[in-house]
Amino acid sequence: MSEGARAQAIGIFDSGMGGLTVMRALKERLPHEHFIYLGDTARLPYGTKSADTVTRYAVQASRALMRRKVKLVVVACNTVSAVALPALAQVLAPMPVVGVIEPGAQAAVAAAGGRTIAVIATEGTVNGGAYLRAIHALAPEIDVVQQACPLFVPLAEEGLIDGDIAEHVARHYLAPLFARAKPAALVLGCTHYPVLAPMLEKAIARLGHSPVLVDSAATTADTVARLLAERRLACHAPSPAANVFLATDSTERFARVGELFLGFPPASVELVELQEG
Amino acid sequence: MSEGARAQAIGIFDSGMGGLTVMRALKERLPHEHFIYLGDTARLPYGTKSADTVTRYAVQASRALMRRKVKLVVVACNTVSAVALPALAQVLAPMPVVGVIEPGAQAAVAAAGGRTIAVIATEGTVNGGAYLRAIHALAPEIDVVQQACPLFVPLAEEGLIDGDIAEHVARHYLAPLFARAKPAALVLGCTHYPVLAPMLEKAIARLGHSPVLVDSAATTADTVARLLAERRLACHAPSPAANVFLATDSTERFARVGELFLGFPPASVELVELQEG
Repeated sequence: MSEGARAQAIGIFDSGMGGLTVMRALKERLPHEHFIYLGDTARLPYGTKSADTVTRYAVQASRALMRRKVKLVVVACNTVSAVALPALAQVLAPMPVVGVIEPGAQAAVAAAGGRTIAVIATEGTVNGGAYLRAIHALAPEIDVVQQACPLFVPLAEEGLIDGDIAEHVARHYLAPLFARAKPAALVLGCTHYPVLAPMLEKAIARLGHSPVLVDSAATTADTVARLLAERRLACHAPSPAANVFLATDSTERFARVGELFLGFPPASVELVELQEG
Repeated sequence: MSEGARAQAIGIFDSGMGGLTVMRALKERLPHEHFIYLGDTARLPYGTKSADTVTRYAVQASRALMRRKVKLVVVACNTVSAVALPALAQVLAPMPVVGVIEPGAQAAVAAAGGRTIAVIATEGTVNGGAYLRAIHALAPEIDVVQQACPLFVPLAEEGLIDGDIAEHVARHYLAPLFARAKPAALVLGCTHYPVLAPMLEKAIARLGHSPVLVDSAATTADTVARLLAERRLACHAPSPAANVFLATDSTERFARVGELFLGFPPASVELVELQEG
């Protein structure tokens, strides 16, 4: 592989800003790399939409990243990873594409030690059953319970990550889940959820439980690092190129809300349009 | 105007299913008419998105309704009415287009009797200030207070229209509003909100207030009835044509959630794609 390809950016795609939690982990794990992050904020959320629509949108986003000459695409959205990964692999081939479900399943199996795993995610991810399959592919004997939590994304996007409302909503979804199982690990199966983690831990403690909270970010970064090494695509020295942020809607809102997920303000967000075909 | 035009459908457009509350009022007020309802469910919600994006989507939807040969378009979405009505009037001319903001303002001014009016709506509607202007155009002396309630749409779409969570969220938005004003009327400035009305009344009563709750549906139906009469576009006899429901995403979800807003299940929902240009 040429030095040219090594110097190219890693593309990251999400329906909105939640994927910035994955970018944060990638930047920590791969400090030499630079990134092009695309958030389809004009059409978010994806989690309540059909698999067909999500796949169509994800293909458009992947093509937009290809045109920007990235060397690898990270699908930093559980809903897309759950329903569209085969379609995206076909569109992007031979470029490698990494989703967040398998890395999340690996982390969960490692944390659960053979005991029950609970998965909380969007409606789309839960209905598709992708975590169930990914966990059972690694450890067929493990019990898995799932719960869709559709209000968690709007809570996180509104910055209501702690306090009275957030805890009420959390209890609404989690009390029935913990009434029917005693999971050793709880998968945060949506890239928006890590910002809710401290509040979730508190709410779960009040229910008398203390599962290990697992998200896909760190294990996804490990998977990407391994792939870059295998394909000789890793940067040898710190890239001089700046990270690029693309959004399909208001760049002002992206910059403002994005900081919550990224940990620092995303610089110079660029407005892009995603087209059919 | 020919009998042909009279027999055409009334087009109704919304970002999703909230506009079905307006369709319900239109059907009651205009029982002879039939309707083509278009919900852009693949890209909802609009309320948190920029005016440019909302206008672009609304123009696409209006063109789709034009191709179906409607005789009048009702914009059954406060966010679109607040930011895109002039652009839509231009696209649709000479066909009449009716938004929900002015009818809502009329209803509020009538209910408030010169006292303060409170408006609750999406971020987009509140920031655009369209209700403020519409109320002050009718009654410049009336005090208006506003509050964006971004979690109300996901609450309604999830069917969490009463109970503990809904009341907590309501108190979160309404307590500060009622601490700074004693409104005589409260405008439900989003077509999703009427399904929350009984819960809102309870929550507001607990705060020690009892404003008249006002929504745009009935006054919008009055405006449409007047326009049809003026332009000689009203049906003289019950239309034999069936109502048509179009959605840009999962028709199954539309049929299921739509019943909550419409009062009866929407029959035979058809999947459509909205394109640029």
